[in-house]
Amino acid sequence: MRHPNRVKIVEVGPRDGLQNEAKPVPVEIKVELIDRLTDTGLSAIESGSFVSPKWVPQMAATAEVMAAIKRRPGVSYPVLTPNLQGLEAALAAGVEEVAVFAAASETFSQKNINCSIAESLDRFAPLAARARAEGLRVRGYVSCTLGCPYEGAIAPSAVAEVAGKLAAMGCYEISLGDTVGVGTPTKAQTMIDAVTNRLPVDMLAAHFHDTYGQALANLLAVMERGVAVMDSSVAGLGGCPYAKGAAGNVATEDLVYMLNGMGIHTGIDLDRLMEAGSFISAALDRPTGSKVARARG
Amino acid sequence: MRHPNRVKIVEVGPRDGLQNEAKPVPVEIKVELIDRLTDTGLSAIESGSFVSPKWVPQMAATAEVMAAIKRRPGVSYPVLTPNLQGLEAALAAGVEEVAVFAAASETFSQKNINCSIAESLDRFAPLAARARAEGLRVRGYVSCTLGCPYEGAIAPSAVAEVAGKLAAMGCYEISLGDTVGVGTPTKAQTMIDAVTNRLPVDMLAAHFHDTYGQALANLLAVMERGVAVMDSSVAGLGGCPYAKGAAGNVATEDLVYMLNGMGIHTGIDLDRLMEAGSFISAALDRPTGSKVARARG
Repeated sequence: MRHPNRVKIVEVGPRDGLQNEAKPVPVEIKVELIDRLTDTGLSAIESGSFVSPKWVPQMAATAEVMAAIKRRPGVSYPVLTPNLQGLEAALAAGVEEVAVFAAASETFSQKNINCSIAESLDRFAPLAARARAEGLRVRGYVSCTLGCPYEGAIAPSAVAEVAGKLAAMGCYEISLGDTVGVGTPTKAQTMIDAVTNRLPVDMLAAHFHDTYGQALANLLAVMERGVAVMDSSVAGLGGCPYAKGAAGNVATEDLVYMLNGMGIHTGIDLDRLMEAGSFISAALDRPTGSKVARARG
Repeated sequence: MRHPNRVKIVEVGPRDGLQNEAKPVPVEIKVELIDRLTDTGLSAIESGSFVSPKWVPQMAATAEVMAAIKRRPGVSYPVLTPNLQGLEAALAAGVEEVAVFAAASETFSQKNINCSIAESLDRFAPLAARARAEGLRVRGYVSCTLGCPYEGAIAPSAVAEVAGKLAAMGCYEISLGDTVGVGTPTKAQTMIDAVTNRLPVDMLAAHFHDTYGQALANLLAVMERGVAVMDSSVAGLGGCPYAKGAAGNVATEDLVYMLNGMGIHTGIDLDRLMEAGSFISAALDRPTGSKVARARG
């Protein structure tokens, strides 16, 4: 089985994980979570979103969070910026990396961000240009790459087209999301193959939700294609507020357990990661979504 | 990604799944579960165990279950028979297939069945001979193939040795169990490679528990080595009563979902399978262990 020697994990729990909470999580909890995650050895922790609090009240305090966390040199703390206003807020907060979020499905784009795919890309282009002019790195997301809650199957070529356009506007990494978690291994490989017809595989990240229990198998499958960056969420937090049933990113603990067992380097201390997962599960008063955490707990 | 065109699933919910229940499940519930599973298109449903009710009271009514189920021609309903006494009971019940259960770990063998591995094989040899003389098929299990709750890591060569001896006594299929669910994909492949040094791959089945969330990824990995028989449990029922934390076989629904998505034939109707899972989850008054069932529920 071909696989990379090392994998970079992008922890998305504090943003993708917590944006779906019924009540916003208090700033001090978010800050402690991010600081604990920093202590695990993670090199990238998506920490919030500068988005209108009208749309996502759960992320309203991102500036406060960014001001309070202990940023460690060498660790990236990207934030989502849906528009130029968000970018200005991110710049004011001193972030070094921002992310933009496009969809591979027209209907999902309309329902999620109220515009067509083309309109969203038109909006992101000046944002990316300004971010890069300010020395920021820009990450691009493509959602619904393995299926859409409204349209069903999505053509791999549609994913490749959006990914290519995000790369062309200067995104250094494209995170390909199975937003509703419906993908299976060969479909995930086929989607990656379509994207690597346009972009080098080392620009790609896999962001797979575990709604149908397929995420780890799908990650294993895309590792065979050389994908070596993976998004996951401590304690399996999260989902997508706009996609019915899309509960839970793949749990970072379960992913690290698999990679450790395969001898693939991540730089992450699993015990500390489990402590961070216990912390946030206790703070949210809910059982962890990580099977490793449940087995060891 | 290399994989078989068809996979045979051995449903183990009624035996491996229910033997761990605090209270024995009523006969009529077991019968309805097995009949519902028959209606899904499954070709093998492990239906009980002729074992001393002193040790496994949950299986005490296996003869009644076997007498009441509607057996469909072409579908196998194997039962576990730990000794000759169990085999006689199985013969009286008119079963056509029995299974014996050995371990790859000495300590697990002692704690689970009160004898060494060698002693267990000595006990199974005349059982297998008599079963075959009566025209029955005999399936062999090897537990702890990817780790032991007492010994930790298990040498793949130890697995291969036990598997080889079970085959030598006439087992037509050897089911290799990750009893505590600690395995990861490359270890699973390495274990299979050790066994296929002795036995043809089409004699092998993978029986992986999902305790650490790794089962589907591990099944994907061993499919690459040609393994095309997989044990799983509807609604993710089960575990091992003697192995701490070993909760849950991989859910049949989640496995069928993956195989369907990969275009691999199983002959199983996923909708009917989900109905069987809903039935037993409701009867046990517990949430399903299948993520597919939760996502679609």
